[in-house]
Order: sequence, then C-alpha cells, then structure tokens
Amino acid sequence: MVLKLYGSLTAAVMRVYCILLEKNVPFELIPVDLRKGENRTPEYLAKQPFGQIPCIDDDGFVLFESRAICHYIATKYAHQGPDLIPQDLEKNALYQQWASVEAFQFETKAVGVVTEAFYKPVFWGQEKNQTLYDEHLDKLGKTLDVYETVLSKQKYLVGDELTMVDLNHLPYAMLLGARGGTNIMQDESRPNVVRWFNELSSRDSWKAVLAKLAEQQQ
Amino acid sequence: MVLKLYGSLTAAVMRVYCILLEKNVPFELIPVDLRKGENRTPEYLAKQPFGQIPCIDDDGFVLFESRAICHYIATKYAHQGPDLIPQDLEKNALYQQWASVEAFQFETKAVGVVTEAFYKPVFWGQEKNQTLYDEHLDKLGKTLDVYETVLSKQKYLVGDELTMVDLNHLPYAMLLGARGGTNIMQDESRPNVVRWFNELSSRDSWKAVLAKLAEQQQ
Repeated sequence: MVLKLYGSLTAAVMRVYCILLEKNVPFELIPVDLRKGENRTPEYLAKQPFGQIPCIDDDGFVLFESRAICHYIATKYAHQGPDLIPQDLEKNALYQQWASVEAFQFETKAVGVVTEAFYKPVFWGQEKNQTLYDEHLDKLGKTLDVYETVLSKQKYLVGDELTMVDLNHLPYAMLLGARGGTNIMQDESRPNVVRWFNELSSRDSWKAVLAKLAEQQQ
Repeated sequence: MVLKLYGSLTAAVMRVYCILLEKNVPFELIPVDLRKGENRTPEYLAKQPFGQIPCIDDDGFVLFESRAICHYIATKYAHQGPDLIPQDLEKNALYQQWASVEAFQFETKAVGVVTEAFYKPVFWGQEKNQTLYDEHLDKLGKTLDVYETVLSKQKYLVGDELTMVDLNHLPYAMLLGARGGTNIMQDESRPNVVRWFNELSSRDSWKAVLAKLAEQQQ
C-alpha cells in the first residue's frame, strides 16, 4: 500500500512533501480541509489526536509531527536518494543541535513574522501588531547572523554535506518572502545565507512542492 | 578530561543534568551567571554563538541545545544506565514524534504559563497578563488530555518502556507547580498523567537535580 500523507499544503506538510520527493518515496496526498473541520472528525483524531496536519499512514503505521515524519522517512530510506542524516556520533550530535536551532531559533521567529503580516490580518481578522512584527524580525536577523558566520566556513549548517536540517528550513524561509513581507532571506549583507537559501530552494524537490502549491491555489 | 556542563540551573540545564545522572556520566558543572553577562563574553560566545545556556565541552567537542546534548549523551552512553532511545525503526519514529510533542505541544504552553506567573512579574518587572495565562493553561490542559488517553493504555509516552522523552518533560512539569501557580500536573481528573509525573519525579536522578537546585538557591 502506497504511503498516505494527510494534509493540505501548510508549511509542515510542505516539509514532509519535500523529503518524500528527495527520497523518491511514492505517496498519495490525501487532502484534509481545515476550513471544513476535516481535522476534527473522529476518524482523523484517531490518527492525530491533536487534530493537526500532517500525519502519515505507511501501510498501517501511523505517525504525526512533521519533523518526526521526515526523520522516519530519511531513516527508512537511508540508502535511497541523498543521505540526509549523519550517523557518526559527533556529526549526528551537531545535526541534532541544528535541528533544535531550526525549531526554536529560526521557525519560532519566522512564525511570529508571518503571523503578524499574514495570518492575523488575512486569516484571523485581527490587526497586525507592528511592534511584535519588528521584534520577531529583529530576533530572526540575529539568528541569521549566526547562520552567516557558520555558512561562511562551511557549505551547510552541519558541515559540507547537505542534511535534512537544511531542507527543513525551506517552508518558513519561503513564507517569509511570500507572506511575511520581508526579503530577509535575500539580504545581501548575509551573502552566505543567500547562497545557502537559493541553493536549497533551487532543488527539484522544492520546485515540485511549489508547483503543487500553485496548482492547489488556482 | 571530565565533561564540562556550562550553565546555572535553568530548566534547560536541569534537563541535561538529569540525563547525565541517569547515564552515570561524570561531569563538572561550570556556573555561567546570566546576570553578570557571563553568557555574552567572547569566550562563551565562541562555544555558544546564541549566548544561551547550557552548552557542553566533552574533551574538546562542544555542543549546545539541551535536547541535542541529551541525545548525544544517551547515544554515546547507550549501554550505560537505562536505555533511553529506542533503535527499532517504528519505535524510534514514535520516540521522535513524542519528542516533537514535548517541545511544541507541552513546553511552549508550559513556558507561557510560567512566563505570565513568574518571569514577567518577578524577573522582568512586567504585569501578569491573566488572559494569556488562562489561554496557555487551557491549551496545556488539552495537551495533557491527549497524554491521559495515551498513558491510560501504556506506562510511558512511547510505550511500556521509559525513554528520554518522558524525562525531558521534568523541568517544566516541575516549574508549573513551583513557579506557574498551577497544580495541573497533580489534577486527579487525569490520574494517569499524575501517576506518570509522580513516577518520573521520584527517580533518584531528578531528586538529585532538585537537591542541587536547593543548594544553589540557599
């Protein structure tokens, strides 16, 4: 049975979609319409008790949380497509370190920016709080200053080899431009961040995610 | 050279301290006084570019982010003390899933509660926002409702064996009572959450962390 990916193309679902393409894993995208409450049905809650997307059903094995799903796919298909998780003790530790940085230092700030610029005014009918927007953007800039220093010495966050932690940044790095009203990922004062982001977002996997997103938004 | 753990006993440092004790790893705690700005010196920033605690120096290998440090210790010392990370593909995937839940569904809400009840009024000289406090507590309750269902069927979050993801909850689960002004971890309407939390917090490792904390606060 082909792997089922449940969800519409939110940031977290795009993250999983990208890794499935990187690892050449056949899958079926099963839409879950949040506006119709399809994430709150008893059938869906039996798979994902928090009512969030995505979750997967891999021949009966059900799993949720996007980063955990990506980790599972990259582990199960380690020898298919690029090797995305280093196994060496210290390299793996640095991979875990940057995975935490992505979650806590990058995405939390990026979510804050996109929330003020887009989710609040467009989705939730609330006013943008400019002070909060500026605070989140300032903190995000400080995070990217650290990235710039690291990426001036090596190609990717963990070293000179691509890992999943680089790719996991893509959904919110893209949304900052598309929905967050900021060109922070293209700021030439951080040339190595620009190089890194442009290389990642030029990958066939990510271009296919964006094509799918454009198709759904038509 | 004995492993060096840098930091004063904040929640994130307590998380690492607990795992070092669980795995019987000798270490030296090196105080980093945030009030004196010891986390912003060039020497410290060379180890931890975000200026946060904790970080470790394990015979020259430097690592930060508390969950990444715990993962490294539990991997390096897999065969010493309890086995805290399942290796089987699906069990490991569920471990990763609950690790994400701990970070995003549990701690973010718990931090919100403790921030309003303690950090804002006591540390930052700001007013407690009761509406935000209530919102965070309500969301935390909904998270613990899911935990209750899971823990009514198995002993721990990943299955019937203890994993690191259970232990990683301890710092904020404790702080909710000590600083958050809520007995939510002892709420008898969720008897299995109470059983789980009481068992975890009765472990020798955690009791030693609390003893160290009490010693520092004298």
